[in-house]
Amino acid sequence: MRPTGQLHIGHLLGALGNWVRLQDEYECIYSVADLHALTTGYEDVKGIHDSGIEMVADWIACGVDPERSIIFRQSDVPQHAELAVLLGMITPLSWLERVPTYKGQIDELGEHLLTYGFLGYPLLQTADIILYKATKVPVGQDQLPHLELSREVVRRFNHLYGPVFPEMEAIISEAPLLVGPDGRKMSKSYGNAITLASTDEEIDKLVMGMVTDPQRIKRDDPGNPEICNVYAWHKLFGAAPADMDEIFVACTNATLGCVDDKRALATRVKDAIRPIREKREELIQHPARLEAILEEGAERARAIAGPIMAEATAAMGL
Amino acid sequence: MRPTGQLHIGHLLGALGNWVRLQDEYECIYSVADLHALTTGYEDVKGIHDSGIEMVADWIACGVDPERSIIFRQSDVPQHAELAVLLGMITPLSWLERVPTYKGQIDELGEHLLTYGFLGYPLLQTADIILYKATKVPVGQDQLPHLELSREVVRRFNHLYGPVFPEMEAIISEAPLLVGPDGRKMSKSYGNAITLASTDEEIDKLVMGMVTDPQRIKRDDPGNPEICNVYAWHKLFGAAPADMDEIFVACTNATLGCVDDKRALATRVKDAIRPIREKREELIQHPARLEAILEEGAERARAIAGPIMAEATAAMGL
Repeated sequence: MRPTGQLHIGHLLGALGNWVRLQDEYECIYSVADLHALTTGYEDVKGIHDSGIEMVADWIACGVDPERSIIFRQSDVPQHAELAVLLGMITPLSWLERVPTYKGQIDELGEHLLTYGFLGYPLLQTADIILYKATKVPVGQDQLPHLELSREVVRRFNHLYGPVFPEMEAIISEAPLLVGPDGRKMSKSYGNAITLASTDEEIDKLVMGMVTDPQRIKRDDPGNPEICNVYAWHKLFGAAPADMDEIFVACTNATLGCVDDKRALATRVKDAIRPIREKREELIQHPARLEAILEEGAERARAIAGPIMAEATAAMGL
Repeated sequence: MRPTGQLHIGHLLGALGNWVRLQDEYECIYSVADLHALTTGYEDVKGIHDSGIEMVADWIACGVDPERSIIFRQSDVPQHAELAVLLGMITPLSWLERVPTYKGQIDELGEHLLTYGFLGYPLLQTADIILYKATKVPVGQDQLPHLELSREVVRRFNHLYGPVFPEMEAIISEAPLLVGPDGRKMSKSYGNAITLASTDEEIDKLVMGMVTDPQRIKRDDPGNPEICNVYAWHKLFGAAPADMDEIFVACTNATLGCVDDKRALATRVKDAIRPIREKREELIQHPARLEAILEEGAERARAIAGPIMAEATAAMGL
């Protein structure tokens, strides 16, 4: 995950929630992708280091467990860059130029992205995976073209130098659709994000301002939960099926008003965020401890990556 | 220098001779550029490792001194790849695409070179230099466009992140023109190369077969030393001005015949190569010692590169 600022509840309900669950089934390796942050953000690098530390606090506060999983900063494990350079030697430029996000992001974000590093970042991603001979990669649907490229690069490597790396497979993150309180995508830059650091007051303010069924104008108009973002959020924040049924009935027969419904949702969101926020605040107080966690993770990562890198360089004749 | 097989007298009289002399004036760092070998030779990597070892034997036999200079294998110092990846983040693709050798070599060697790594190798070269904050780089005239690119990348880095790296300058290698014994460029693939491993018999055979002044048909025809490759070689192999004058006179008044002249040259060449060959043969007997030299060199290189790399990553916000 790139260190691009505070995480919000979209991350918690999406990728990060999956990461926590995957720990029960897999040996997991999670990295602060600070080199990737440079592929698009090389012109303003001031926040990268501190964002990384804060992000790790968020991860741990949400349940990523540095004892069970390996948590580290990408740039602390030099083998990522080394392997990316080696993979570049065998990768036709055309493979990289045809990755859909390449042209797309340049159109969207501007020509300052026409750099060598931005064109090559799928190779850095490939190195991130195969450096540990990882077999599964939790990704969103939009990342599948990158993963397909990674698989092609692995096949080419193995064809040229012998079977060193496994072809990885995607674990598609089932990220539920989270619509922001104002009906737009949740994003810090829109000011509509409930972050993992949001206070009770901030959560109250954002939840109480949420858009409900626009047809329900008066308190005793019946509402339509199926088009109501508040109703959707109740489910996202873990309301039991029985509770969902109860809200549905009370809304459609107008015994529950929007204000009361939002108040109940705010309680639910605050109850979910509070322990995370408190944990992250405690963690943030001790950045040296977080650094130590990252350093220990980097050591564990290097211990895996070192021998695999040696295998790769030997296969390539170095 | 890329590990691309046995060195010949062209290297001795050119780059390698300069390397030996530069040791008197500078702290020198010489690397077996095995990663660079992959930029064009990724499809056939079998010889890279052993060629590197043999090349180091050649270097030392010619007078590169592993006590005074740092001799190491590029892939043993991970910071080369790490820094190259970082430089890629800030380098516009167009800068790399316009390097004259890029299109040129693809036209010459084929489209299998249209790889990400080949396009990026000037960045790897830049990393090779600035990783040690080197201020001088011994290069041939043909490498000047690469060095100009390196200087541009350094300026861009310093502009974005503060003054970390010095702008390096070229020391142009005055490589004397060495025409092969048969009048073509000297190259192992033409079978006209006197290598640093050539035996006295091999040297005799190649020198005695050299083309002289084609107008001098009979033994007592006067020769023209100015168009005679044998005469040129006498000078390249260190004949003193007085000797050169003597040969000139004896050739032009036909007291010296081509066969005797070549015999004298062969002696000169054999005398020059013999100590190198004997030294390299002795070195090659002990590949473990050569590996140890490379390992010690890598350690010294990493000791310089580590803190400079840390400075670069800190400047880039990592």
